[in-house]
Amino acid sequence: MEPGKKKWRFRGNRELNSAAITVHGVMEMLMEKINKDDNRPIIPLARTDPSTFACFRTTPVAVDAVAEAVQSFEFNGYPNTVGVVSARRAIAEYLSHNLLYEISPENVYLTIGCTQAIEIIVSVLAYPGANILLPRPGYPHYETRADFSNLEVRHFDLLPEKAWEVDLDSVEALADRNTTAIFIINPGNPCGNVFTFQHLKKIAETARKLGIFVISDEVYAGQAFGSNPFVSMAEFATIVPVIILGSLSKQWVVPGWRFGWIVACDPNAILQQSGILECIKNYIDISANPPTFLQEALPQILEKTRSEFFSNILHVLREDAQICYDGIKEIGCLTCPHKPEGSMTVMVKLNLSLLEGISDDMDFCLKLAKEESVTVLPGFVVGLKNWLRITFAIDPSSLDDGLKRMKAFHERHAKKL
Amino acid sequence: MEPGKKKWRFRGNRELNSAAITVHGVMEMLMEKINKDDNRPIIPLARTDPSTFACFRTTPVAVDAVAEAVQSFEFNGYPNTVGVVSARRAIAEYLSHNLLYEISPENVYLTIGCTQAIEIIVSVLAYPGANILLPRPGYPHYETRADFSNLEVRHFDLLPEKAWEVDLDSVEALADRNTTAIFIINPGNPCGNVFTFQHLKKIAETARKLGIFVISDEVYAGQAFGSNPFVSMAEFATIVPVIILGSLSKQWVVPGWRFGWIVACDPNAILQQSGILECIKNYIDISANPPTFLQEALPQILEKTRSEFFSNILHVLREDAQICYDGIKEIGCLTCPHKPEGSMTVMVKLNLSLLEGISDDMDFCLKLAKEESVTVLPGFVVGLKNWLRITFAIDPSSLDDGLKRMKAFHERHAKKL
Repeated sequence: MEPGKKKWRFRGNRELNSAAITVHGVMEMLMEKINKDDNRPIIPLARTDPSTFACFRTTPVAVDAVAEAVQSFEFNGYPNTVGVVSARRAIAEYLSHNLLYEISPENVYLTIGCTQAIEIIVSVLAYPGANILLPRPGYPHYETRADFSNLEVRHFDLLPEKAWEVDLDSVEALADRNTTAIFIINPGNPCGNVFTFQHLKKIAETARKLGIFVISDEVYAGQAFGSNPFVSMAEFATIVPVIILGSLSKQWVVPGWRFGWIVACDPNAILQQSGILECIKNYIDISANPPTFLQEALPQILEKTRSEFFSNILHVLREDAQICYDGIKEIGCLTCPHKPEGSMTVMVKLNLSLLEGISDDMDFCLKLAKEESVTVLPGFVVGLKNWLRITFAIDPSSLDDGLKRMKAFHERHAKKL
Repeated sequence: MEPGKKKWRFRGNRELNSAAITVHGVMEMLMEKINKDDNRPIIPLARTDPSTFACFRTTPVAVDAVAEAVQSFEFNGYPNTVGVVSARRAIAEYLSHNLLYEISPENVYLTIGCTQAIEIIVSVLAYPGANILLPRPGYPHYETRADFSNLEVRHFDLLPEKAWEVDLDSVEALADRNTTAIFIINPGNPCGNVFTFQHLKKIAETARKLGIFVISDEVYAGQAFGSNPFVSMAEFATIVPVIILGSLSKQWVVPGWRFGWIVACDPNAILQQSGILECIKNYIDISANPPTFLQEALPQILEKTRSEFFSNILHVLREDAQICYDGIKEIGCLTCPHKPEGSMTVMVKLNLSLLEGISDDMDFCLKLAKEESVTVLPGFVVGLKNWLRITFAIDPSSLDDGLKRMKAFHERHAKKL
């Protein structure tokens, strides 16, 4: 038998090789275009990970809590699958603050970042015939996991002219008897908006009317720096059942720790009676869990982080948002319909008719990466073709530099009148 | 609208509520039986997690590497999805030691414990019509994930009278043109055996003949303390493509860190050409990954752990295996067909005809938990009805205590002659 002639019976599972676009995949394509002879630093406005910038450094409280937990030698054993009790209780208490009911620690499930939280909730809803409602623009991991689970997705629009509020008429038109849930992201990724109390209440009432529940991605909880304060969808769980997705990633600026949670806000026990909570537990039972020492560190992290840490982060984000908004105004081919007031990203519209030799958003981003060493996410990845998603959560002077390079890029490619 | 009258349209995904038996689920049932008035300590012989015992404490080298990585503030950002390069390279070098070829760092994928490694490899093989070969007895998470992915499983026997070697005749009889892979676990969980070089070679040759590849779960790599030295299946990758699954969990006694790996040993690029490696990468791209700081700590852990740490662990395991083997001999209703020489568990046969009022292995374990505060895993969970899986990797004096309680239990329930 010669190795070259041997017949083998196995192959890859082609169903896994979907055409799904991931932020990561597009990032790789952009990075390949970077000109290695350009001595200027790369300005990363495509991926939302400010952890490498000094002004976004996490608090020593969090770092020390993790180091102490691992160095205690007490938390090297298997975690119990849904999560250690003290961590679940800490999250329940943290989120119950300001609510008229109490979140039960039993309704808190610990996950490996929000990535796994999304995987779990999408899988739990992916039964034959069902469909879910996702925002457009949105966060593409929802679409990727729904595609993987063969769950039908219907998109409702966020309205740029209405501060990226949900188009509730289109929600009502899209839903049918097989619709189970509406997903929102607040503060908004990718739009940088913050929903008002009144709008959240309307979303809850619309969901109730349709008989569906709300999943609120609050990964950017608290990160509101404009006129609208952050309000959690948890406040409306007496109107409609709510599931909150959250994580340490953005609030504590530690996306690499991969620590998140699913929290059922279910004061009327509707989710429990539906079987959805049991499904979540069953799914977690057969899945990987976060490291035990991270779970054990969580109560310390939540309790001991000082408010100054969060206000400092907000201060930088507010400054960044202003720099970003002002800088975009200077770039002729870009329009920002709504000044960012939350999260770490903003959507801007690309006017291709003002440019020469740029075919679409992807082409814009590839050429920008090549010529200016600035990476920006093409809007089609988040559902809006010929828009751009700009991550402004970086060091303010680097952001300023990046926007100036984008302006130079625009001027070089502007159509001659 | 009164809350009580409202109709909701969602429910749980019933397909996720499978009848799969998990070690965790059975453990919960056993723990519920523990008599709270029994002042004696619980002796945990059901779950394999020795990390809480001082004699199995992990090395400070590993703990300090993790603490230093997190306290450096340098590794709080997102990991790249297949894993940080230095960690992949460290594992490739660690496993290439002793091989006649080199494992490429590109063929190393970092996972959240072996739990996620199993999820990934099973999902990648779960295409319509395919089947895989799993050992009986085995590790039930394989069956659970295959069931979840609708992948057909065929079981070959491990032969107790032949030191739990693979019944290669049954392997050949089971395989058909839709069989893609054979899974082995070496050192053996649950049997405590260690395959010889010659037997591993025969498994490789049988797989090659069938045109299938080998997945070798080497979570207990190096943990051989009898006459057979541990040999990695990687040594036979020139005969047949091999995928190794491994983790820090057992070798470093840190199961709670949830850090594992998938390594393709593919010197003839057969797995690569089959598309399986691309599938693994695609699956990982849309899944949660281990924390960045753990990935960054890995090279230090692999390079700096002293051989004394491993030899001390082996010393305790060898003593435990002897205590376990001797203790079982004293218990009339149990037979151990093969003295454990590797891993942390052993299979013993239960002779129900010698007992009164015990209906099966589960009944035995439930009553044992209730009366003696000793937890042992019923064999049906790992594929052998009316056997028991005993985890001997605990503090030796506790193990001795546990076996004495089992003897007392036997004597109380022995059939009167």
